[in-house]
Amino acid sequence: MIKVGIVGGTGYTGVELLRLLAQHPQAEVVVITSRSEDGVKVTDLYPNLRGHYDGLAFSVPDVAKLGACDVVFFATPHGVAHALAGELLDAGTRVIDLSADFRLQDAEEWSRWYGQPHGAAHLLGEAVYGLPEVNREQIRGARLIAVPGCYPTATQLGFLPLLENGLVDNGRLIADCKSGVSGAGRAAKISSLFTEAGESMMAYAVKGHRHLPEISQGLRRAAGGEVGLTFVPHLTPMIRGIHATLYATLVDTSVDVQGLYEKRYADEPFVDVMPAGSHPETRSVRGANMCRVAVHRPQGGDLVVILSVIDNLVKGASGQAIQNMNIVFGMDERLGLNNVALLP
Amino acid sequence: MIKVGIVGGTGYTGVELLRLLAQHPQAEVVVITSRSEDGVKVTDLYPNLRGHYDGLAFSVPDVAKLGACDVVFFATPHGVAHALAGELLDAGTRVIDLSADFRLQDAEEWSRWYGQPHGAAHLLGEAVYGLPEVNREQIRGARLIAVPGCYPTATQLGFLPLLENGLVDNGRLIADCKSGVSGAGRAAKISSLFTEAGESMMAYAVKGHRHLPEISQGLRRAAGGEVGLTFVPHLTPMIRGIHATLYATLVDTSVDVQGLYEKRYADEPFVDVMPAGSHPETRSVRGANMCRVAVHRPQGGDLVVILSVIDNLVKGASGQAIQNMNIVFGMDERLGLNNVALLP
Amino acid sequence: MIKVGIVGGTGYTGVELLRLLAQHPQAEVVVITSRSEDGVKVTDLYPNLRGHYDGLAFSVPDVAKLGACDVVFFATPHGVAHALAGELLDAGTRVIDLSADFRLQDAEEWSRWYGQPHGAAHLLGEAVYGLPEVNREQIRGARLIAVPGCYPTATQLGFLPLLENGLVDNGRLIADCKSGVSGAGRAAKISSLFTEAGESMMAYAVKGHRHLPEISQGLRRAAGGEVGLTFVPHLTPMIRGIHATLYATLVDTSVDVQGLYEKRYADEPFVDVMPAGSHPETRSVRGANMCRVAVHRPQGGDLVVILSVIDNLVKGASGQAIQNMNIVFGMDERLGLNNVALLP
Amino acid sequence: MIKVGIVGGTGYTGVELLRLLAQHPQAEVVVITSRSEDGVKVTDLYPNLRGHYDGLAFSVPDVAKLGACDVVFFATPHGVAHALAGELLDAGTRVIDLSADFRLQDAEEWSRWYGQPHGAAHLLGEAVYGLPEVNREQIRGARLIAVPGCYPTATQLGFLPLLENGLVDNGRLIADCKSGVSGAGRAAKISSLFTEAGESMMAYAVKGHRHLPEISQGLRRAAGGEVGLTFVPHLTPMIRGIHATLYATLVDTSVDVQGLYEKRYADEPFVDVMPAGSHPETRSVRGANMCRVAVHRPQGGDLVVILSVIDNLVKGASGQAIQNMNIVFGMDERLGLNNVALLP
Repeated sequence: MIKVGIVGGTGYTGVELLRLLAQHPQAEVVVITSRSEDGVKVTDLYPNLRGHYDGLAFSVPDVAKLGACDVVFFATPHGVAHALAGELLDAGTRVIDLSADFRLQDAEEWSRWYGQPHGAAHLLGEAVYGLPEVNREQIRGARLIAVPGCYPTATQLGFLPLLENGLVDNGRLIADCKSGVSGAGRAAKISSLFTEAGESMMAYAVKGHRHLPEISQGLRRAAGGEVGLTFVPHLTPMIRGIHATLYATLVDTSVDVQGLYEKRYADEPFVDVMPAGSHPETRSVRGANMCRVAVHRPQGGDLVVILSVIDNLVKGASGQAIQNMNIVFGMDERLGLNNVALLP
Repeated sequence: MIKVGIVGGTGYTGVELLRLLAQHPQAEVVVITSRSEDGVKVTDLYPNLRGHYDGLAFSVPDVAKLGACDVVFFATPHGVAHALAGELLDAGTRVIDLSADFRLQDAEEWSRWYGQPHGAAHLLGEAVYGLPEVNREQIRGARLIAVPGCYPTATQLGFLPLLENGLVDNGRLIADCKSGVSGAGRAAKISSLFTEAGESMMAYAVKGHRHLPEISQGLRRAAGGEVGLTFVPHLTPMIRGIHATLYATLVDTSVDVQGLYEKRYADEPFVDVMPAGSHPETRSVRGANMCRVAVHRPQGGDLVVILSVIDNLVKGASGQAIQNMNIVFGMDERLGLNNVALLP
Repeated sequence: MIKVGIVGGTGYTGVELLRLLAQHPQAEVVVITSRSEDGVKVTDLYPNLRGHYDGLAFSVPDVAKLGACDVVFFATPHGVAHALAGELLDAGTRVIDLSADFRLQDAEEWSRWYGQPHGAAHLLGEAVYGLPEVNREQIRGARLIAVPGCYPTATQLGFLPLLENGLVDNGRLIADCKSGVSGAGRAAKISSLFTEAGESMMAYAVKGHRHLPEISQGLRRAAGGEVGLTFVPHLTPMIRGIHATLYATLVDTSVDVQGLYEKRYADEPFVDVMPAGSHPETRSVRGANMCRVAVHRPQGGDLVVILSVIDNLVKGASGQAIQNMNIVFGMDERLGLNNVALLP
Repeated sequence: MIKVGIVGGTGYTGVELLRLLAQHPQAEVVVITSRSEDGVKVTDLYPNLRGHYDGLAFSVPDVAKLGACDVVFFATPHGVAHALAGELLDAGTRVIDLSADFRLQDAEEWSRWYGQPHGAAHLLGEAVYGLPEVNREQIRGARLIAVPGCYPTATQLGFLPLLENGLVDNGRLIADCKSGVSGAGRAAKISSLFTEAGESMMAYAVKGHRHLPEISQGLRRAAGGEVGLTFVPHLTPMIRGIHATLYATLVDTSVDVQGLYEKRYADEPFVDVMPAGSHPETRSVRGANMCRVAVHRPQGGDLVVILSVIDNLVKGASGQAIQNMNIVFGMDERLGLNNVALLP
């Protein structure tokens, strides 16, 4: 039984880790931290957990307790994992960070986008970007995992087969992404109110969103060179879900794009290439660790349109984190992640 | 492995049976029927099932095939189970009916509310009303189960402790109930459109709803005599969930109502009595087979207010049906039903 | 042209005043205050106002400027009107307060429910409770108006005809009310997030809500004596709307309740008694200054069920405030308030 | 007073015409037709209209009655206006068609996309495409107006300034559009159910949507030559609103795009160019006849991103129809269309 610690468990990725780990046969949450909710039972904050975690309460972060865990998940704002990861690694604990702290390989670039110095640049060398569909081998046995962001997961899984095979104009990629409001976290912000985000749609951060450098980094790796990406995120009136609509121009229009995708993801348990002509709905992955992808070429032109959907809290965060844990510890990658999406 | 058949699998209780049974370690769906979707793969209609039921397709109802199952669930409009249940019982198959066909013990009353003759009155004698918290012993080994309706489940579980103990004025019970739109099923009705049911709230069927006689029947049984119930259902702009707000007048104000509820449901795996002062949210049971109940006495008067929430598709339908199956076959009642509610 | 000032214009009742007053032929907003948004154009905060208030900016409250207005609306948290109303009245300005500051006639009761001393008890003598359907004559020419709360408006208009005529048991009134999330205002609270309030339903403040004493005060006045009211508010996943479901027991079952309501409200421009058997939807009043009421007697018993719907921001706040302004200044009560509700 | 007839008044564009015309000082609805609802009062179908149209009932279409109107709006499925428009024009009545019947100038292309022969090709010569921002002069005095579709309105208004000035690569235009569910009309379709369209997002008709040829036709006219457009519509869980996110590649990056848009629309009452850096929300135009546009150049590259929002039922249908009526009859274009958008 793997002993799990969670730092920063009051947010949505925290409760989602608890929900999923309750079904995991070989993992057990033994510590969950929160400064603000110290002493509060997790079931008081999240009544859906009643009957599943009745003995578990939030506690202030304590490196000794966390260091006694086999693995610690960081479900925290950026900066927190920077401060604690090193000590935990020294204690022999694996660290799986759901925040952005170790996603960018370039500490200066991180610093530019997050507006503060990188707090653990010395650890970047061993941080593995936890996108199993790309880095499965490096994840196996890794000590420090940077779980990809939600937009980056949907976007990279959508673009990868094209870029890895040099099939499109890498300089003209567009990712028009739509996210549910839970992507903004459980923070008391006016813009996330039901009365503000409901019954409306808007783009945001068109000038530049923090996920842009992360996506670009991943696409560069896949393309083996520079890429030009325009990324426009939109806030959508739903709780969960990301719908990425991706546009790229084929340099070779004779390619069988559908077949390419089916082959690329044939052995991937958590990427589902839909039949040609499909329009995946975000609800088809609600609560499930799954990315569903569909491929289109409207009017048979050279523009390919990829539709890629995930649940931002699962394949876009906590589910993918557990998938990484399973790989790190050499378990079946699918453990605890086989529930059916909730529809309707 | 219990072989399961599902009649009428295209509706929401059908897909919900599939979702939950995918996680059941001792049951396997071998037949699912639909006249309109004959030959269609279940994953084509419900992409969330992709990877879980890839070989399963809808077929037209065939008594021989269904009769070869250990148990058949009816997820059908009323009348269908009347027509088929007898033959299946004769074939040795257990029948668990999610429709209203066998809920009312009085065939004439059924006929009055449903506007057609009762088609299987001779089976009423052995039909067991599948509310485990009341009829667990009769369910064990039963051949024909009538799964309670959604409003009746939330309302009865909320009222039972008071009525069983003769603590309230049985003639003045009020159930003000709020349901998500999935209670209306997957039928192409204008009133269920997003554009009609969204961003709005309304009462309906105040004159008399078909669940009224079912609830009254259950409350009479609990009270051991006549009851007077006013039942006002409301349509609420959410997909899943029932919130029952129940009002009753105490005849003895010295009773410890909170303690009474805690004792009554202490051993019930799927009824959760919340701490005093709680306000259960429907989302705390979304996707889970659970009824959460809270007890209030506003301003310390003689009026008691019970708040009772369920997911109408789970504890109010498919989950409760599986709970019945587990009991019927002598398995652990909780098998396949231990997932955590999806929140947020 | 009436010169209007608005104190606290950044909240939802503030923007709603602006929306409605833009259509008012005889009123003009000349001052709008906000400490936090001093200098910001109203159209920057509320882009829906672009083209309508392009020259108007928030300013810090200034008694001299406000005192130069013919009328000042307070769209503020409680306590603010206490502090400023006296000075404005001295300056000859009419005050129409949308907050709770002057709703309760008893300063001690106010203090008990709001947890602070009443800051302007000396003004209570001339404060008029601005429910035109009850106090139209007192409103005409009044200097200080307390605009009723949202729940109190829907509930009182629903109960009044029964209580004014002594037709029900006044000791056993129940108001089961459902409100959209905008009732919680434009405050950055976790409980009002889209991710918390969406796709869920819950009761709240069952122990005692601040609108309880206000409703009781109004019902006592109508009944000419004590009343016993149980008030259970619920949070509903919609932006606007209140649906009050009211229960009372007739003492005389021979009365024509439908006729009674039609007669009581025959001349009221903003109360619409629906045909017998109706189920009013909240969306039928979205954005409109209207209360629609329907009367039911389920199963012909002695329990009467009243359904009363309003838009909490219009007839439950800003629209009613303007209705009061029209009456105060002797104008046609309907000026600026004749728009059709937005449906769908 | 202009006498108005409405053919097919039971759908959402019908009720929206009624809502807006109720505020129009110089128009009066005298006939509204519906075969299915013959004899039903409009207020029975749409209670929000109570008090505004109490004497108006649906009637079966009668050319004599319609021909006595000054103008007839068609709020019908395609094909109906083909059948009736000619007779009405002969009777001297102006026809403003909200359906797709006269939008495409090429009858064969229409036939290809709509799967039936064009029923009134002889009228195409005088049909004016009712986008006032392009065709104001032709609309003035026209007898037959084809009101643009919702997606075409948002998309054309967004692209026009770029194309009219030859500033972008016309062969690589992308319109990623998101629509509320009311765009699918008031038809009893499973895909439009609250339970299907709620809490989810999906693309649809990527292969080819009927609005594609209409948009292309308009863009060709603006560009003075062929264009290559990829149009991907998405279904969004909101009732009203279209958000068009438009992508084009500048051929001259020295142009002041913001200034260009401000100049192009300076005199347009119903196009609002937002300040640089803005992200218009669809709710900022809810219920209002307005298109708000914002211009971006992410990372200062040669890709320009235009955000264009409308209410699909107003500027995308009924509001624009009334705007056309105002122009046709030489009235102030803004009559009846100056209400403020409903926010929140």
